[in-house]
Amino acid sequence: MSEAVALREIGADEFVRVWPIFQSVIAGGDTYSYPADMRFEQARDMWTVPPNRCFVAECDGKVLGAYLLKPNQPGLGDHVANAGYMVSPAARGQGIAGMMCEHSMEQARCAGFTAMQFNFVVSTNATAVRLWQRHGFQIVGQVPGAFRHAVHGPTDVYVMHREL
Amino acid sequence: MSEAVALREIGADEFVRVWPIFQSVIAGGDTYSYPADMRFEQARDMWTVPPNRCFVAECDGKVLGAYLLKPNQPGLGDHVANAGYMVSPAARGQGIAGMMCEHSMEQARCAGFTAMQFNFVVSTNATAVRLWQRHGFQIVGQVPGAFRHAVHGPTDVYVMHREL
Repeated sequence: MSEAVALREIGADEFVRVWPIFQSVIAGGDTYSYPADMRFEQARDMWTVPPNRCFVAECDGKVLGAYLLKPNQPGLGDHVANAGYMVSPAARGQGIAGMMCEHSMEQARCAGFTAMQFNFVVSTNATAVRLWQRHGFQIVGQVPGAFRHAVHGPTDVYVMHREL
Repeated sequence: MSEAVALREIGADEFVRVWPIFQSVIAGGDTYSYPADMRFEQARDMWTVPPNRCFVAECDGKVLGAYLLKPNQPGLGDHVANAGYMVSPAARGQGIAGMMCEHSMEQARCAGFTAMQFNFVVSTNATAVRLWQRHGFQIVGQVPGAFRHAVHGPTDVYVMHREL
């Protein structure tokens, strides 16, 4: 299956294809801090207006997942990339997130970044935490109660990091 | 001296009074990641456009310092405040940063925040690290080499946090 998956960058004009996945992911209230009533234009701009870049994982013309790649800080911190990944509920368990993670690190290296940092990995999202660890990320910080989880309430958030 | 210092919120129209301090602080390249060639309009918008708020510490009509107060994340993370402080080089060592820190925590509590987080405390800035610790913040994370320090080169950055 994953042989047929292709990854490529998209512009603002194609973000409408990511939007259903974006909506379903934030509706869960268990992984991203984005508000559930976020508007399309806000999400699109946040994911596609430079220096922020959006990539999709596609198969047979369907978008299975998407990710955001951007500098984690401006100026004297812009050698560290930041990324966020979303997978369609229908495409879970097929290795899409891992493929996107590897792709994002390669894109980040090409763009001159020397490290990658995740600022807000929800600690109860054990699948994601393990996946990022398998892809070389370490937990370098833990912020108590920084996420209001839809099910678990106040939940710790990890800061994760790796060199590229 | 600190009896005469008054703290108040300002709008975008008064940010021009903060700008000289802002410029001198970022020119040092030792505390903030903001690029040295940052434009006035960028800085003003980042510090004054809601939900971001800007406060100044004044004495005898002169601005001695300023700080930014904002949610650290949108949506399900917006109960945690973030703040950044700048003191005029001429006003260092007079307790202005500490006063602003206490003021910001009070303002944050009033606005409903239940914690405060600093994402990017440069580890070599020992004065700041000790000051935030005295004001109740703990180091909850350490990101290797996330800051390109003008003097020290790649420098670790602390994530600091406290409940309000």
